[in-house]
Amino acid sequence: MFDRQLEKKAANNLKALREKKPLIHNITNYVVMNYTANALLACGASPVMAHAVEEVEEMVSFAGALVLNIGTLTPHWIDSMLKAGKRANELNIPIVLDPVGSGATKLRTSSAKRLLDELDIRVVRGNASEVLSLAREDSVTKGVDAVHSVDEAADAAIQLSNELDTTIAITGDVDLITYSGRICMVHNGHPLMGYVTGTGCAASAIIGAFLAVDPDPVDAATTALAYFGLTGEKGAISAKAPGSFQTAMLDALYTIDGKQLEEGARIHS
Amino acid sequence: MFDRQLEKKAANNLKALREKKPLIHNITNYVVMNYTANALLACGASPVMAHAVEEVEEMVSFAGALVLNIGTLTPHWIDSMLKAGKRANELNIPIVLDPVGSGATKLRTSSAKRLLDELDIRVVRGNASEVLSLAREDSVTKGVDAVHSVDEAADAAIQLSNELDTTIAITGDVDLITYSGRICMVHNGHPLMGYVTGTGCAASAIIGAFLAVDPDPVDAATTALAYFGLTGEKGAISAKAPGSFQTAMLDALYTIDGKQLEEGARIHS
Amino acid sequence: MFDRQLEKKAANNLKALREKKPLIHNITNYVVMNYTANALLACGASPVMAHAVEEVEEMVSFAGALVLNIGTLTPHWIDSMLKAGKRANELNIPIVLDPVGSGATKLRTSSAKRLLDELDIRVVRGNASEVLSLAREDSVTKGVDAVHSVDEAADAAIQLSNELDTTIAITGDVDLITYSGRICMVHNGHPLMGYVTGTGCAASAIIGAFLAVDPDPVDAATTALAYFGLTGEKGAISAKAPGSFQTAMLDALYTIDGKQLEEGARIHS
Repeated sequence: MFDRQLEKKAANNLKALREKKPLIHNITNYVVMNYTANALLACGASPVMAHAVEEVEEMVSFAGALVLNIGTLTPHWIDSMLKAGKRANELNIPIVLDPVGSGATKLRTSSAKRLLDELDIRVVRGNASEVLSLAREDSVTKGVDAVHSVDEAADAAIQLSNELDTTIAITGDVDLITYSGRICMVHNGHPLMGYVTGTGCAASAIIGAFLAVDPDPVDAATTALAYFGLTGEKGAISAKAPGSFQTAMLDALYTIDGKQLEEGARIHS
Repeated sequence: MFDRQLEKKAANNLKALREKKPLIHNITNYVVMNYTANALLACGASPVMAHAVEEVEEMVSFAGALVLNIGTLTPHWIDSMLKAGKRANELNIPIVLDPVGSGATKLRTSSAKRLLDELDIRVVRGNASEVLSLAREDSVTKGVDAVHSVDEAADAAIQLSNELDTTIAITGDVDLITYSGRICMVHNGHPLMGYVTGTGCAASAIIGAFLAVDPDPVDAATTALAYFGLTGEKGAISAKAPGSFQTAMLDALYTIDGKQLEEGARIHS
Repeated sequence: MFDRQLEKKAANNLKALREKKPLIHNITNYVVMNYTANALLACGASPVMAHAVEEVEEMVSFAGALVLNIGTLTPHWIDSMLKAGKRANELNIPIVLDPVGSGATKLRTSSAKRLLDELDIRVVRGNASEVLSLAREDSVTKGVDAVHSVDEAADAAIQLSNELDTTIAITGDVDLITYSGRICMVHNGHPLMGYVTGTGCAASAIIGAFLAVDPDPVDAATTALAYFGLTGEKGAISAKAPGSFQTAMLDALYTIDGKQLEEGARIHS
């Protein structure tokens, strides 16, 4: 049933984010850098994109969260991600991993797994096939192809979260967030979000921004995804096609306030 | 005169694209990655941007077409393009080459020529000076500067298509598409398209998407360019300046249906 | 008081830019490449993004200005910037430096200083903390943290301009432009500009475009910033949130004409 307490916390997290304006350090893919930066700015956060191995440790030390995204990966970016991530771990700065395309190529799957092995990742966010590709072989039921329903995805996500000891957020028609026995579901969102590149990546970055103000990874990821999903719903009121919808989502990230978020969030737990 | 059959095929190709949702693998320039991905999504295709030499062969094997674009080239990207292209050729996956800036610098001209030498390219799309720079020295009349009219461009394009044995698409006020004695002209488009970066690159990517559903390269390129040009016309109905026009084009890519495309396409052959 | 002569010159520069359509060569960061290219196109300039060390000397030789931006720097990009910059200096093509994030990490500060040491930079544009980080240690009052007012920033900018012997443009609520004893202030702009990524970078690129038609660096930077600030004001008339505002700014760059600029510019000197 609806979790009124988390819906209220969503509002508080959003307000805290806009007061604190945390720096969010992104090492992300070329395709979405601009949209991610704009999404973070529209939320009220302060984005920085920096990937040079020479500076990532310095940069991340100012950050409220680090967001790692393997969308246009080459191997030397992994070095930067590991360096930034290790420093973030030392400083207890939360890390979000977005394993874009994991499962599609060996480079992506092995890189995502290496980041999970060597870093303490606070939240992993991806679609079902990306996230479930991170499981050890032969674990997590029969793999992605076996996941045909929200219930099956939930079971697999719980297994994977236990195996990796991290919060797992699988986004889709319904978003699932799970860790340590808890499971939350977010029913916000709109189908047009699938027609705009980088909405998943922006969701990961916004989870980072919420982690900068909320130390509980399940609460932060859940409330961030409710907020992001709600921007899709608000955007779709005025925009009926992907170009104007993309713009309307950025507008909604800026205009939605705590009260609207509390009323609009549809979180089950 | 108007080629009603091709205008009808344009509609069928668009419908097929939206049903099949082919993966289009792009190795393209940084400037347009986001817009290209959004344009492909809005069409109904499924874009992926991946350039790591370690993964391009795997990635392209899932693709309905490969789009190579040299807009922000460095030499090691050519290695990835060649690797992806060779695998695409083995699997008979069509390749589109967009020789951005060929003719402006030696790196671009020689890189574009090397891709044409070593790969079987299905369609080359560029503006007149880019495309005609690909000719062997002393061939193709007197070079770009000698091309002052659509007729002269058509003659040069036919020569070049014969020389390279590939379909040539030159976009401009009128788009010319030629191969093996056939020549088609597309009269769709709008001057505001010249004020939005990446419209040419998006056109190349959409040719890729049409090649994924239509094996005839002249038909695929011609119908794709009619569709893309029509989105410019539709976009310009509501938008009078480049910012809102860019958005309106993405909207039109999504909203134009087969019937509108058949009625709006202006293809001569 | 208002400098009517410079406000008139702003109009003339804009008209000259649209007639001459200068090529502006940008070696800039991944986040803003698309927006910068679109901003330059909307102004009437002709952007090119090219960073390969193999081609930058050739490319810059066609350009009316070179814009160097260190926003997503890695060390090998500096090599390209130096190569392009040296060739630009030989050909007396003006260079704008945007020291994004200088002061935040050693890599950025030292890279920006190296570019200033080895190249003849015509204009440096950044926010106060970026620009003032370029001072030699112990110079420029007590550093950025000591700058609490426009007057203090102006004093520091004058000192720095003397030290570096270059035009300094510090953008903020009020923009300061200074060189060789002159100081101009631009009172155009809108707070929403801070919610769109790359507005500062676009301002730098547009200064480049104005330098291509106006050899006086203070006049070029001042008039460019008045124009850019005015687009923010015009954009904010129709747009109330960052997504639509970003679009409206691009529209305004295209639609504002000389007369509107002369009337809307608020330049003090």
